[in-house]
Amino acid sequence: MNNYQRGLEIRKQVIGQEASRAVSESLKEIAPVLDEYTLLVFDEMENRKILDLKQREMITITTLLTQGDTAPQLKIHIQGALNVGLSQAEIIETFIQCLPYVGFPKVLNAIAVAKKVFE
Amino acid sequence: MNNYQRGLEIRKQVIGQEASRAVSESLKEIAPVLDEYTLLVFDEMENRKILDLKQREMITITTLLTQGDTAPQLKIHIQGALNVGLSQAEIIETFIQCLPYVGFPKVLNAIAVAKKVFE
Amino acid sequence: MNNYQRGLEIRKQVIGQEASRAVSESLKEIAPVLDEYTLLVFDEMENRKILDLKQREMITITTLLTQGDTAPQLKIHIQGALNVGLSQAEIIETFIQCLPYVGFPKVLNAIAVAKKVFE
Amino acid sequence: MNNYQRGLEIRKQVIGQEASRAVSESLKEIAPVLDEYTLLVFDEMENRKILDLKQREMITITTLLTQGDTAPQLKIHIQGALNVGLSQAEIIETFIQCLPYVGFPKVLNAIAVAKKVFE
Amino acid sequence: MNNYQRGLEIRKQVIGQEASRAVSESLKEIAPVLDEYTLLVFDEMENRKILDLKQREMITITTLLTQGDTAPQLKIHIQGALNVGLSQAEIIETFIQCLPYVGFPKVLNAIAVAKKVFE
Amino acid sequence: MNNYQRGLEIRKQVIGQEASRAVSESLKEIAPVLDEYTLLVFDEMENRKILDLKQREMITITTLLTQGDTAPQLKIHIQGALNVGLSQAEIIETFIQCLPYVGFPKVLNAIAVAKKVFE
Repeated sequence: MNNYQRGLEIRKQVIGQEASRAVSESLKEIAPVLDEYTLLVFDEMENRKILDLKQREMITITTLLTQGDTAPQLKIHIQGALNVGLSQAEIIETFIQCLPYVGFPKVLNAIAVAKKVFE
Repeated sequence: MNNYQRGLEIRKQVIGQEASRAVSESLKEIAPVLDEYTLLVFDEMENRKILDLKQREMITITTLLTQGDTAPQLKIHIQGALNVGLSQAEIIETFIQCLPYVGFPKVLNAIAVAKKVFE
Repeated sequence: MNNYQRGLEIRKQVIGQEASRAVSESLKEIAPVLDEYTLLVFDEMENRKILDLKQREMITITTLLTQGDTAPQLKIHIQGALNVGLSQAEIIETFIQCLPYVGFPKVLNAIAVAKKVFE
Repeated sequence: MNNYQRGLEIRKQVIGQEASRAVSESLKEIAPVLDEYTLLVFDEMENRKILDLKQREMITITTLLTQGDTAPQLKIHIQGALNVGLSQAEIIETFIQCLPYVGFPKVLNAIAVAKKVFE
Repeated sequence: MNNYQRGLEIRKQVIGQEASRAVSESLKEIAPVLDEYTLLVFDEMENRKILDLKQREMITITTLLTQGDTAPQLKIHIQGALNVGLSQAEIIETFIQCLPYVGFPKVLNAIAVAKKVFE
Repeated sequence: MNNYQRGLEIRKQVIGQEASRAVSESLKEIAPVLDEYTLLVFDEMENRKILDLKQREMITITTLLTQGDTAPQLKIHIQGALNVGLSQAEIIETFIQCLPYVGFPKVLNAIAVAKKVFE
C-alpha cells in the first residue's frame, strides 16, 4: 500500500466509509488534489505515534470549534470522535472545557452540531 | 473550603504557584473580579469529572493555539500541560495535529512559545 | 431568590421569555450546565453596576458582529437590544461604527440578521 | 460623473448588474449609507492603478476565504473574479495556495461556494 | 473646512494631537492614502449623529478587543475613550461585559493594554 | 532531486537563503517534521502551474494579513514577494485592497511590518 491507500484506510476508519466517499465525491472534479492531500494527512496521523486516535479527534474537534464557521467539518469529526471511541459525554465535556477560553457562541454552535450528530 | 479556595488550590496545581500569584497580582487593582472568575473556572474543572487534567490542558493549549494572539496564555498553559503530566513530545504533537486545520502560522507561533517554556 | 433565579429573571427581561425558554430547552439534555452558566452571566450583569443594560447590549451585539459565525446569538441579542430600549437606528449605527475596524462582510452579515429581527 | 456614479459603473462591471442591484436593494431602507460606501470603494478601486481588476479580485477572494463566515460575499466575488477574466482554474488555485496558511476547513468552504457559482 | 480638515479636527479631539500626528507620520511615505481614509472615517463619525462619541469609543474598544492582535489600536482608542469622557471603570466594565462572549484571553489582553494606558 | 530537495531550492529562491536556514534552524530539534512539511509545500508550489510565484506571494501576504497575529510570517513573505519580483508599491496596494474587507487594524499592522522590511 502506498501513502494514499494507507491514508484512505485510516480516513475510512476515522470518519466512516460514507463520509470518506462524500469528501472524494465533492472534490473529484473541482479540486481532486485536495482529496489527495487529506489522504496524506490521515496517513501521517497513522504514521506518527505519540498521540492515539482518540486524542487526535479530541484535538480536532477543539480546533474546529475554536476557529468557527466549521459546521460541516465539525459534523464529520464529531462522528469521527465517536467512531474512534470517545463517548458523547467526553465530546460535550471537551466543548465545555473550551468555554472560558472562547466564550459561549462558539461552544453553543458546536453543541448544536453535536446534537444533530448524536440523534 | 469555598469555591474560590478550591479554585485557587487547583489553579496552583495546574499553572504553578508563581504563575497563579502573578495572575492575581496583575488583576488585583484593575479588575479583581476577573481573578475571582478564573478561580471559579478552575474549581469547576475540578468538580466536573469526565475528563482528567491532562486532557483538559491538551484541549486548552489547542484552543489557545487556534484562536491566535494568545502567547501569554499559551505560555502559562504549556507550563500547565507539563505540570499535570503531558510530555514535551505530546505537547508538540498536539500542535502538529492542528496543522491541517489551522495552517502553519498558528502552529509555528505555538511552537515558538513552547520552545521558550521548554528551555 | 438565589443566583440562578435572579439570572433567569434578568435573562427573561433582556432576551424575552420565549428565547429564554428556548435556550433552556435546547441545552436541557445535552449540556444543562451551560444553561446554568448563562444564568450566572445574566445575574452578574444585574449585580455589577457601572454600565446599564442598554450599554451592555450595545457591547454584546458589537462583540458578536466582530467575531463572526454568530448569527443565532446576534439574532437573540438584537432582539435583546430592542427589549432594553435601544432603537433600530441605534442598533444599525452601532454596526456602522464597526465598519472601519472590521470591514464590510461582518457588518453586512449583521445587518442581514437585524433586517429579519426588525421585520 | 461623480464618485458614486463612477463607483456604480465599476461595481456593475465587476460583480454584475444583477448582484449590484441586489446589494442596493438589500440596504436601501435599513442602511443606505453602506450601499454608498461600497460605491466609493469601487470608485477608489478604479482610480488607484498599480493593480488591475484581476489582481484585485484575486486578493478579494483570498481575504474573504481567510476571514471565514463570508459565504455571501465570496459568492459575489467568485462571480466577480470570473467577470474580470480569471479562469475557474485560477480561482481554485488561489484557494489551494491558501491551504498551508489557513488549513482545510476554510479552503473547503470556499471550494463549496465556488462549486455553486461555477454550475 | 473640507472633509479631511473636519476629520483631522475630530481625530485630534478623540485620540489626541500627539497620536493623530503619529498616525500621519507613520503613513506619510509608505501609504499616505490610508491616513486620508482615516480622516474621512473621523469626519463621518462627526456627521452621522444617532450615537455620541462616548458610545462610539465604547463600540470601538469592544470591536478591537474582540478581533485580537490589535494592541496598538486598542492603546490609541482606550486613550480615546478617556478623552471623550468614559471613566476607567466604564472601560474595564466594557471589557468584562465581553467575557462571556469571547473568553478570558482576549479580555485579559485588553486589560493589560488598559493598565499601561491608565498609568 | 527528491521532493524535499526541490522544495528546499524553491524555498531558498522565494524567501531567501538566510530565512530558509533560519526556519530549519528554529525547528530542527523541537519539530523537524514541520520543516520537512514546509519543503513539500514549496515543492508543490513549483509543481502546480496555473499561478506564477508573484501571484502566489501576493495571495500569501493577503491571507497572512487577514488572519492576524502573523507578523513573523508576514515579514518573511513580504521579503519573499520582493524576491519574486513584486514592487513595494504592489505590495502596499495589495494591503490597501484588503481594507474594505478587513478594516484598518489588520491593514495598518501589515503596513508596519512592510515598513521594517523595506528599510
